[in-house]
Amino acid sequence: MAGKPSRGLADVVVASTAVSDIDGRDGRLSYRGYDIGQLAGTVSFEEVAYLLQRGTPPGRAELAAYRAELAAGQDLGPAVRASLPAVARAQPPMAALRTLVSLASADDPDAGPPGAGRSAALDGPAAVGGAGQAAPGRAVPPGPAAGRRTAARLTGQQPALVAAIHAAQAPGGAPPPGPEPGLGLAANFLMQVTGRVPAPRAAEILDTCLVVQADHLMAASTFAARVCAATLADMHAAVVAALAALSGRLHGSANEQVMRALAAARATGGDPVAAAAAQVIAQLGRDEPVTGFGHRGYRGPDPRAELLRELSAELAAGGDDTYHRMATRVEDIVAAERDLHPNADFYAATVYHYLGLPPGLATPVLSVARMAGWTAHIIEQYADNRLIRPGSAYVGESGLTWIPAADR
Amino acid sequence: MAGKPSRGLADVVVASTAVSDIDGRDGRLSYRGYDIGQLAGTVSFEEVAYLLQRGTPPGRAELAAYRAELAAGQDLGPAVRASLPAVARAQPPMAALRTLVSLASADDPDAGPPGAGRSAALDGPAAVGGAGQAAPGRAVPPGPAAGRRTAARLTGQQPALVAAIHAAQAPGGAPPPGPEPGLGLAANFLMQVTGRVPAPRAAEILDTCLVVQADHLMAASTFAARVCAATLADMHAAVVAALAALSGRLHGSANEQVMRALAAARATGGDPVAAAAAQVIAQLGRDEPVTGFGHRGYRGPDPRAELLRELSAELAAGGDDTYHRMATRVEDIVAAERDLHPNADFYAATVYHYLGLPPGLATPVLSVARMAGWTAHIIEQYADNRLIRPGSAYVGESGLTWIPAADR
Repeated sequence: MAGKPSRGLADVVVASTAVSDIDGRDGRLSYRGYDIGQLAGTVSFEEVAYLLQRGTPPGRAELAAYRAELAAGQDLGPAVRASLPAVARAQPPMAALRTLVSLASADDPDAGPPGAGRSAALDGPAAVGGAGQAAPGRAVPPGPAAGRRTAARLTGQQPALVAAIHAAQAPGGAPPPGPEPGLGLAANFLMQVTGRVPAPRAAEILDTCLVVQADHLMAASTFAARVCAATLADMHAAVVAALAALSGRLHGSANEQVMRALAAARATGGDPVAAAAAQVIAQLGRDEPVTGFGHRGYRGPDPRAELLRELSAELAAGGDDTYHRMATRVEDIVAAERDLHPNADFYAATVYHYLGLPPGLATPVLSVARMAGWTAHIIEQYADNRLIRPGSAYVGESGLTWIPAADR
Repeated sequence: MAGKPSRGLADVVVASTAVSDIDGRDGRLSYRGYDIGQLAGTVSFEEVAYLLQRGTPPGRAELAAYRAELAAGQDLGPAVRASLPAVARAQPPMAALRTLVSLASADDPDAGPPGAGRSAALDGPAAVGGAGQAAPGRAVPPGPAAGRRTAARLTGQQPALVAAIHAAQAPGGAPPPGPEPGLGLAANFLMQVTGRVPAPRAAEILDTCLVVQADHLMAASTFAARVCAATLADMHAAVVAALAALSGRLHGSANEQVMRALAAARATGGDPVAAAAAQVIAQLGRDEPVTGFGHRGYRGPDPRAELLRELSAELAAGGDDTYHRMATRVEDIVAAERDLHPNADFYAATVYHYLGLPPGLATPVLSVARMAGWTAHIIEQYADNRLIRPGSAYVGESGLTWIPAADR
């Protein structure tokens, strides 16, 4: 195919979406028309997940029913429970999550490809590229209701899986405490990871973190999920692709890298703020990127970082504020030297630290939030689908003649 | 982001590649400059996999060493061996493959993210969107040599995994026979799936199938792998995303759908060719897509289908030619009514059938071939990387005010 490559697709609009939107100039992010500044701190993650997946805010009865669906997802299924200890011992958290979410389709009665109605499969002649048909004699594929149920189950399951993997990787490997029905998703997750019921404000802060990070347009993980979903692969397949993409250090694992960099600076033994400053100045001097800064979508501040900075400051004020002071010093330096603002990964790192979440769980925690958005995008992709198959520009040699190895 | 969505990215060139190229007008496909018409039937799948992954044809010594690497991959590792029976009992083949390839990173001493050199991480200011840094104090990440080793291991592992899953799903669930050192990858795979050493010509034909389907530009699975790799997620993550995308019926599982449709027509009891004709005429009458026909990349015949049709005819001539006659009749009807040509999935279905491969393994067999191409694309993506993060057009509501559920 001819044409100049659009590397990274930064200038290509790949989909119409009603899930989330940003105003990159004013630094605003909204979910289905609701600004996250309005949601953060006032609306629970459960309500936001419902909003993203089902399109409108839940009423009281709908929210109660949805919470019950999430709670059912927290009970890991038999296939996952049986394999979890061995997988968690064999793989680091993000790889273990990828393996176990993949396996979880075995435990989901609604798992399977999306409805094979013509509206999902066809959108014009070009769709014949591998376009499908319902196989004769097969059961009717799960429709949108099944997809919504699977989305809720995956959203409830993700924090339980992260906590169970973390527990299995700890010395002794005892399972985490079971979820408490009276607690919300964030509180239960903190309780299962740390082993104790969190202070109400800590649970609220984690809840806000999850809300703020629940979706972000065509992030690489979300886009990977949509590329998979567009083949009409099932929701588990698409979510596994998202988890795979999230694990990369140019995407989801940036939050872990931020915390490890701060911890390394502190471990040098001198004044930690000065050490963090020296570290980032050295990086800038080598013209290296600084993890946690900048985002293609925002010209100015990232609204998520603004909200997370406030939470980090609040938590720091209640105890050892060293990491927060280190982070704000790094922010000041990068702003002055590069005119770059922190992105969501940056202050998520210190907030998670203050909440008692180990650095190795930073990316898994992000996956707990993002599961809400991924599944919303997958549902949206199924509803108006076209196979996503870009072109490429060939830059290799042509017309070569193969010489057998024996003659070479 | 403003702009008209380029749905499906059919008109967008996303990457420069030297792995494969098509001439859609003349119906040609080439791997690194070698036309597949030249490779099919004369060059082994092992040589093609080497060519794709390492850029040039292997010499004798290189091929011998590469075959040894593939053979080592055929020995499934301890983590995979331990979990395989339970996973294979719990999940259908493509889901089990996704789970077990994900788990296999635990068994690969070279697994891990790609080298963190600046050339891989940075390509200009836009790359700061989540751009990373090597974490202080971490081990040096695996470089290209490690990536090449993992690619070979995954390529050798894939047929062994497919055969082991198939065996575990059979009554009794005994493991398949071990690979025989004297046989090539295709012969060993057929032997492990069917339980007996195949006729030399059968092994050659499967080998040709694998060659013909080893790579195909930015197929959805390959693109999913590149989207993951572009976050600098590791090769296992990227390959898992590819497997997830391949499982969709608009992509890899089309070959299974083709065979099931032919089998359903035959099962009606009347003249099978007439039944297949009636089935496809009815589909066309309902204006439905016919699986196995058409491809965005080719205006005329798909060269892979041409080669696979010849193999199907040869195998049919040696026994019951019913399915081949059904397939050619369907081809004639779709050509006459829609002016569409069969794609690779169509005659792959009958060839696999004649080789004794069950329909439920059709997509896994394709994954054996495609593993060579996926890993080549992942290596290429790492070598000159930029995060793949497209834009989206927001089409939902804006400026909404959240009303608490209690007040609604």
